[in-house]
Amino acid sequence: MQLGLVGLGKMGFNMRERLREHGHEVIGYDPRPEVTDTPSLAGLAESLTAPRVVWVMVPSGQITRDTITGLGDVLEPGDLVIDGGNSRFTDDKPNAELLDAKGIGYIDAGVSGGVWGLKNGYGLMVGGDDEHVARAMPIFDALRPEGERADGFVHAGPVGAGHYSKMVHNGIEYGLMQAYAEGYEILEAEELVQDVQGVLRAWSKGTVVRSWLLDLLVEALGQDPEFSEISGYTEDSGEGRWTVEEAIRHAVPAPVISAALFARFASRQEDSPAMKAVSALRNQFGGHAVKKADADETLRAPAPKNTE
Amino acid sequence: MQLGLVGLGKMGFNMRERLREHGHEVIGYDPRPEVTDTPSLAGLAESLTAPRVVWVMVPSGQITRDTITGLGDVLEPGDLVIDGGNSRFTDDKPNAELLDAKGIGYIDAGVSGGVWGLKNGYGLMVGGDDEHVARAMPIFDALRPEGERADGFVHAGPVGAGHYSKMVHNGIEYGLMQAYAEGYEILEAEELVQDVQGVLRAWSKGTVVRSWLLDLLVEALGQDPEFSEISGYTEDSGEGRWTVEEAIRHAVPAPVISAALFARFASRQEDSPAMKAVSALRNQFGGHAVKKADADETLRAPAPKNTE
Amino acid sequence: MQLGLVGLGKMGFNMRERLREHGHEVIGYDPRPEVTDTPSLAGLAESLTAPRVVWVMVPSGQITRDTITGLGDVLEPGDLVIDGGNSRFTDDKPNAELLDAKGIGYIDAGVSGGVWGLKNGYGLMVGGDDEHVARAMPIFDALRPEGERADGFVHAGPVGAGHYSKMVHNGIEYGLMQAYAEGYEILEAEELVQDVQGVLRAWSKGTVVRSWLLDLLVEALGQDPEFSEISGYTEDSGEGRWTVEEAIRHAVPAPVISAALFARFASRQEDSPAMKAVSALRNQFGGHAVKKADADETLRAPAPKNTE
Amino acid sequence: MQLGLVGLGKMGFNMRERLREHGHEVIGYDPRPEVTDTPSLAGLAESLTAPRVVWVMVPSGQITRDTITGLGDVLEPGDLVIDGGNSRFTDDKPNAELLDAKGIGYIDAGVSGGVWGLKNGYGLMVGGDDEHVARAMPIFDALRPEGERADGFVHAGPVGAGHYSKMVHNGIEYGLMQAYAEGYEILEAEELVQDVQGVLRAWSKGTVVRSWLLDLLVEALGQDPEFSEISGYTEDSGEGRWTVEEAIRHAVPAPVISAALFARFASRQEDSPAMKAVSALRNQFGGHAVKKADADETLRAPAPKNTE
Repeated sequence: MQLGLVGLGKMGFNMRERLREHGHEVIGYDPRPEVTDTPSLAGLAESLTAPRVVWVMVPSGQITRDTITGLGDVLEPGDLVIDGGNSRFTDDKPNAELLDAKGIGYIDAGVSGGVWGLKNGYGLMVGGDDEHVARAMPIFDALRPEGERADGFVHAGPVGAGHYSKMVHNGIEYGLMQAYAEGYEILEAEELVQDVQGVLRAWSKGTVVRSWLLDLLVEALGQDPEFSEISGYTEDSGEGRWTVEEAIRHAVPAPVISAALFARFASRQEDSPAMKAVSALRNQFGGHAVKKADADETLRAPAPKNTE
Repeated sequence: MQLGLVGLGKMGFNMRERLREHGHEVIGYDPRPEVTDTPSLAGLAESLTAPRVVWVMVPSGQITRDTITGLGDVLEPGDLVIDGGNSRFTDDKPNAELLDAKGIGYIDAGVSGGVWGLKNGYGLMVGGDDEHVARAMPIFDALRPEGERADGFVHAGPVGAGHYSKMVHNGIEYGLMQAYAEGYEILEAEELVQDVQGVLRAWSKGTVVRSWLLDLLVEALGQDPEFSEISGYTEDSGEGRWTVEEAIRHAVPAPVISAALFARFASRQEDSPAMKAVSALRNQFGGHAVKKADADETLRAPAPKNTE
Repeated sequence: MQLGLVGLGKMGFNMRERLREHGHEVIGYDPRPEVTDTPSLAGLAESLTAPRVVWVMVPSGQITRDTITGLGDVLEPGDLVIDGGNSRFTDDKPNAELLDAKGIGYIDAGVSGGVWGLKNGYGLMVGGDDEHVARAMPIFDALRPEGERADGFVHAGPVGAGHYSKMVHNGIEYGLMQAYAEGYEILEAEELVQDVQGVLRAWSKGTVVRSWLLDLLVEALGQDPEFSEISGYTEDSGEGRWTVEEAIRHAVPAPVISAALFARFASRQEDSPAMKAVSALRNQFGGHAVKKADADETLRAPAPKNTE
Repeated sequence: MQLGLVGLGKMGFNMRERLREHGHEVIGYDPRPEVTDTPSLAGLAESLTAPRVVWVMVPSGQITRDTITGLGDVLEPGDLVIDGGNSRFTDDKPNAELLDAKGIGYIDAGVSGGVWGLKNGYGLMVGGDDEHVARAMPIFDALRPEGERADGFVHAGPVGAGHYSKMVHNGIEYGLMQAYAEGYEILEAEELVQDVQGVLRAWSKGTVVRSWLLDLLVEALGQDPEFSEISGYTEDSGEGRWTVEEAIRHAVPAPVISAALFARFASRQEDSPAMKAVSALRNQFGGHAVKKADADETLRAPAPKNTE
């Protein structure tokens, strides 16, 4: 079928390619002339035959909102917009209402798979009306991995359910990555274990912890043993935060996902204000040695340390 | 080759079967007459041709120690013992020394795969001398999954390195399971998401969080939707505790693995002494409503609650 | 000076008493006839001499909003409203703007001290304009503890800063209570320690951990040794949640405060959906014994448990 | 009464002074000639009148063990040794047995109060036989704070109970400090709050979070606003680790104390191996920007980041 695709970044670009490989006609729009198929959103609307289906794949937040608004101006009643970006699920209802006022349908689609999706297909979680989902199903079937539809696609509920599911997916992902990372660090710290990369690789088949993330970790270690070329500074893209916020809203204990999120926050601090406070406190009550902010050496107390 | 196998529980029983399917001669010993191939450890030793290789697959701790001691009495110099149980790595050196004093070799082998290992093969992490590992390699090759040896087997280091690696494997496993579980609970709590099992299943292919544990979770939900037949009471088998203890010994932050361990502890408490203390404290300073231990209803305060 | 006081619950009632003891004229309004001094908000406004100062001490959220709106209707330009409830700091700017449009000033005041404030005084954190804060200072001075003003009162910043500071105060409080509670539970679990209450009491003076919360814990144990009369079921009043949300917004690691919050969530669950998932997973891969939801006894596996 | 005191570091030195102020005769021994009252342990024993009481105040571990052993050689049946250092409680039974074999009594004493103990008195938690504790009571009464004995002293149980209680005291202390520190960091991050030190100081009286540690934090900020002179690098002295290990042994959830411990571990890492692994993983699946270990700038991806 025919699809308009707004946003040809890392994800959108690959998705256009995969859809074309599956025989769909994709007209992509992106502000960057070197990748776009059409010069404007208006041009995109003109190029498509009504009723149109347009997939939005741009950064979440204001850019997505602006794109949805712009599509509301150039599309017609009966058209359908799919937001496939990493939008917060709370953006979906306003977006759907904005379009619904103009007779345009809306689906929110969580998309997982990263740069590997082009080859392996993308895991898809969508929210919206049955009729809209049915109309876009050929696109979903082309994007999702080969095999049974239910192994890579779900119609999770009404508008918002797709992004909600994707959000939780990413929250889990934070926890999984941190679990492997903690285990890796413990193995690295233990001198008995002389082949850490070999240990991780030996978990690839048969073990309880085998996973795609483990495979990637083995691959990464193969490229850069002991991660000497990489910093621990780790960004977060929002969905881990939202997952913890949802856990709080639903009064669900989420110690693992929040710990993984906080570890990322900590990784980005040159020095921790909180730990400065702890260090200052220890100094107050114990005359404990503290490390001066501008000193290379810890100033150590000369005498017994029974002062905590 | 020929192997003696002590312990024919869930794991040992299946391993005997898998080894025989791969053409090895296995003589199994277990105190339960209905499964054993030989009436005693001494009988086992007599049935095997020197130099013998004997795999021990019994519960960790005293039973393993007693079995190692017993084998020390019936085996001969040049024989080799492999402890494949979930022993703490600190048991390995004493076990190796006990046997070494009698000229008997020792390998520690971490084995992962659970009841699925019979079919899929077992992930193996071993510690010991090169010569010993080489001698037992046909056994390892039969037990490990098909494919490249390094994807399911590692010689991780000297005696102790195998169990150390398996311990960390299980620590990671705790974290992975808890991450999925937290995400599951958040999905269950959100009414937008109308098909939680469908969402989890849709992650099976293509997504970043795909894994064997996820497949099992989908399977479990298929058998018992909403887990109505199961209690949250969750045992721990020791390795999660040891992993956190190792993290502490090496000063490695392990917030995720420890959170997963503590969640298991909490799952086994009828009521939490700590939370009783918190509840009592709130009552002290705020006249906050507290729930009586023997009451069905929370006694609520009638007036504004601005008292914390 | 003269003060109108809306809300005569546990906190407001005591504050009226303390203010009167300090020589202030307080006219209190509460919908409950048995405590109110005036039949209505309008009556309250009439009873006060302009320029009026009215302190609002009602539950946070909609009730506070409605009260502010109601005061906007009956007060006059030049009057001043102080919200002393546990409002979320994000409510303060809208409240201030609503009143400012009518020429009425606004201060947000965080109040700590619980039922003990009547006797000991209340810790106060306020936000607002210098002029407004100066006008209400006689009230603040009467409410705060004896001694230096700065030990029990702070003008923390513009509107919102008072409730923000109180929110963080309560977040810290969660962490402090949980720290004592964990320690209490460990002491209770250790048979060497034969006098847990005595240990806690011995920390009352001289030690690093001495605090008012510790005193309360000792008091509570004196009233109910081993907390046999109390359930661990623990409410949370919102500010712990907001503190973690603020930590997330500012990318501040808050593992302790969030752990304390999650422990409260967990205390309120009959059974944990997450732990059911973990338990189901263990059963899937290991044939581990699981506890049936409706069984008193754990069904234990008969054979070695090396299956994780 | 007369007391021998081994170890005149920060703690022992002050304790000698406080005991002398209370009229006790103290003969101190320390290897440093400038502080010692006697040239050797043997000299100490000779200077004291039997039955002797000797207080050991040296670093825990081997030094304490060696000192106990040395005292065993120079003391006589009927004498009494008190270990007041921060020994692990598991050291107490061996120490008691070593001395008991020579007819010498043993008490373990946890001592809290740091450098302030000289003036304020020390919180004391002791373990041992009633008869031994009674004999040393004049010393305990001089060291503990003024006021009721039970507010600063406890005979917690048999040998080991004193150090166990002190260990938990310190574990709690870790949690308390971290709770304040997290709150401090959140306040610092929020621009509404313009006087962070003022906020903390305003909690000194009347509030729920008032404590001695809070007073110290206010004091520390007064000396070094924003902690510009101090590093977040924070040591741990062992007891936090032991407390978490005990929590694990007793299957007590201890998320707050362990989080506080792990925060200290993390504070001492230049870069986190675990977070390197997480960062490497993100790069693998998402083409996410990663920060090079040797780069000042994060290399950012130019295109939409919907790739997690």
